[in-house]
Amino acid sequence: MANDNADSLIIGLAGLGTVGGGLVTLLQSNRDIIERRCGKKIVLKRVLVHNLQKKRHVTLASGTEVTDDLTRLTDDPEIDAIVEVIGGQTTAQTLIDRALDHGKHIVTANKALLAERGLPLFAKAKEKNRILRYEASVAGAIPIVQALKDSLASNHIHSLLGILNGTSNYVLSQMTADNLDFATALQQAQDKGYAEADPSLDIDGFDSAHKLILLIRLAFGVHYDFSKLPIQGIRNLSAMDIRLANQLGYHIKLIGSAKAAGKSDHEIEAGVFPALVSHSFLLARVEGAFNAIHIKADAAGSLFFHGRGAGDLPTASAVLADLLAVAREEYPNNTGFALDLPKAEIFPEAESSSCYYMRLMVDDAPGVLRDIAGCMAAEGISMSHVMQRTQDGFSEVPLVLMTHETTECAMQKAKQAISAKLHPREMVSFKVLA
Amino acid sequence: MANDNADSLIIGLAGLGTVGGGLVTLLQSNRDIIERRCGKKIVLKRVLVHNLQKKRHVTLASGTEVTDDLTRLTDDPEIDAIVEVIGGQTTAQTLIDRALDHGKHIVTANKALLAERGLPLFAKAKEKNRILRYEASVAGAIPIVQALKDSLASNHIHSLLGILNGTSNYVLSQMTADNLDFATALQQAQDKGYAEADPSLDIDGFDSAHKLILLIRLAFGVHYDFSKLPIQGIRNLSAMDIRLANQLGYHIKLIGSAKAAGKSDHEIEAGVFPALVSHSFLLARVEGAFNAIHIKADAAGSLFFHGRGAGDLPTASAVLADLLAVAREEYPNNTGFALDLPKAEIFPEAESSSCYYMRLMVDDAPGVLRDIAGCMAAEGISMSHVMQRTQDGFSEVPLVLMTHETTECAMQKAKQAISAKLHPREMVSFKVLA
Repeated sequence: MANDNADSLIIGLAGLGTVGGGLVTLLQSNRDIIERRCGKKIVLKRVLVHNLQKKRHVTLASGTEVTDDLTRLTDDPEIDAIVEVIGGQTTAQTLIDRALDHGKHIVTANKALLAERGLPLFAKAKEKNRILRYEASVAGAIPIVQALKDSLASNHIHSLLGILNGTSNYVLSQMTADNLDFATALQQAQDKGYAEADPSLDIDGFDSAHKLILLIRLAFGVHYDFSKLPIQGIRNLSAMDIRLANQLGYHIKLIGSAKAAGKSDHEIEAGVFPALVSHSFLLARVEGAFNAIHIKADAAGSLFFHGRGAGDLPTASAVLADLLAVAREEYPNNTGFALDLPKAEIFPEAESSSCYYMRLMVDDAPGVLRDIAGCMAAEGISMSHVMQRTQDGFSEVPLVLMTHETTECAMQKAKQAISAKLHPREMVSFKVLA
Repeated sequence: MANDNADSLIIGLAGLGTVGGGLVTLLQSNRDIIERRCGKKIVLKRVLVHNLQKKRHVTLASGTEVTDDLTRLTDDPEIDAIVEVIGGQTTAQTLIDRALDHGKHIVTANKALLAERGLPLFAKAKEKNRILRYEASVAGAIPIVQALKDSLASNHIHSLLGILNGTSNYVLSQMTADNLDFATALQQAQDKGYAEADPSLDIDGFDSAHKLILLIRLAFGVHYDFSKLPIQGIRNLSAMDIRLANQLGYHIKLIGSAKAAGKSDHEIEAGVFPALVSHSFLLARVEGAFNAIHIKADAAGSLFFHGRGAGDLPTASAVLADLLAVAREEYPNNTGFALDLPKAEIFPEAESSSCYYMRLMVDDAPGVLRDIAGCMAAEGISMSHVMQRTQDGFSEVPLVLMTHETTECAMQKAKQAISAKLHPREMVSFKVLA
């Protein structure tokens, strides 16, 4: 430790937005319990902000300094650990890299940085024998990093399914509950502060994807290249599909999914996509801005975690869990995965198998269903359910098919054949999680 | 460490029943991943059994010895850590106490021992600077000890609600799904191996109560005297109440509940009891032999954990999580609570407030409902719902009342008044968790 005072952990905080502000609040409001459980005071010495003039919601303790000079955090010999919650990749990377060079422990909530450029930082932390922890970067207050790293360490993980982005789940919940279209639900989320002015990172699945990359490292011990992960967001979801799915006993959720493909230890089938989740499944019950993760492991069996995936205090709670581990000087190198991380072999998306929901807008003419069924049968796809029913508030009559398990490749070919033959005005399909 | 070989952790195992057998299996089947994640081999040197002649399902590795002499575990200088899964209190206490005297780390699944006689053992572990971990003792594979101890360490916990006993939850699930009476459902559970020949510990709430005492220590930092905990099991539950509750939108679950009563830091309102849980609540969805815990914390917000609460491999997974922490020599004294644990102030049960479900078997005569409503009103209890409906398969017509929030004391007085006035053939009431 840089600091010789064993009674306190001196920290620097980079970023005073939602999470940084939450941390300042929590350090003040729960100082009693933190000191009692930790055995040390946590002293916030200095805060790095981008704009010194900006008005802040939180009041810093009288001893805490504010700076816009990164090196005043990284280079201060008195500071033991740095909390990085500025987000973005370039400055955060520079900050963490330089802080490690100066012997600081790191606690970060930066999923994008760790997913896309994290490995050299973990390697440097190991080389410098410093702690680099990141519980707050995945699923907010849910202790999923800890669970995978420690609690499930003796398990082979078969699969994990997560609702990893609260903003998109909030939008989907509103679309479902109030029968809203995507644009209206998104606008409501923005009005309530659940969605950013530029919501792309959340809505288009990238934020879920960053978190999934971190979970894959922990669960399967491999590095899955972010640029190769199939990612599909919820921007094009229609209210009609959400309503039809509901009638069939499903909610549509934005899912991050990863499973051991089984051919080799390192082969992973993964992706981020909207899917139909059966009402009987706990994941379907995740409402509003909550996150949840379902894990299947060989020894522990099925585990489900549910909690707040974002917000000032829930995320600050996860940051503090990491800070307390730093205060205990706990096992610096326990990143939860080997540092010579093998690359994931990527299971081809085309070969992935699932049940599917498909909706077509077609003329209600004789022979249409026969032709569609023929295109499906030609690819070996059998159907479990066909529904054609007038929808209140929609002028056209949708044709909905549910398939038995088939491959993505077969579905794509069947859709091409249906397109060529029937020219449907609209045709969408989603995976179904039973 | 007793053992000088830094490449391996040498362990002794006390007990070769379900959990001990699961640990042996898991150590063998997942040796690859355990060594990779732990950085050490875990070597099972010796197993303590009660009966050397008894046939076992598991095959021990060739180097592993079997003994019926406790001191061959506790006193062996080569053994680093002892896993105690024999259950019961007297022998287990002797074993752990003696093992600590000989400098062993301890991993135990013994909720009864830790709840009723645990404090001196934790004190001795601290005195000897040895690890005493017990993740497997509460809720099987669910990492709830870790979550409360580390992940939520910066939080004040407001409340926790748990389904902590898989056997009784299995019985309740079968009663609900198949409309069985208690005795038939229990017999089925025994036939399937989910319930012991003497099911009292599970069915009468004592096992849940032991676990709740451990959770209260972690969540609220106080010692709640086991002998003072209100405990009510499911033995007298009728199929009719389960069915009526279901019609009203609730499942009946055996709940362990604890909350900060708020008057002082140390005042706790706690108990184990069957309660109606709304279908909209995730806890109501916990089926079969699963366990679940719902926590409300000031910073993290609402958290829900769901997983296997018993069974050979799920429990062994939790034991191994603790063993890996021992192998990392992680923070010996982090029991998650101060050792000078203040005694809980016990919030009087009579003052606890809740909504209630009440069912009466009464003659369907004019004035009966008026008289009942009068007895309730005299105690200031207002009703949210009254139902009188013929039940298939039941000859009598039950009268069901749902109340707004009131106190246990008021309910008891109202029931006494109803008893005196109307002499109902049967009258039962349960708390309702909204």
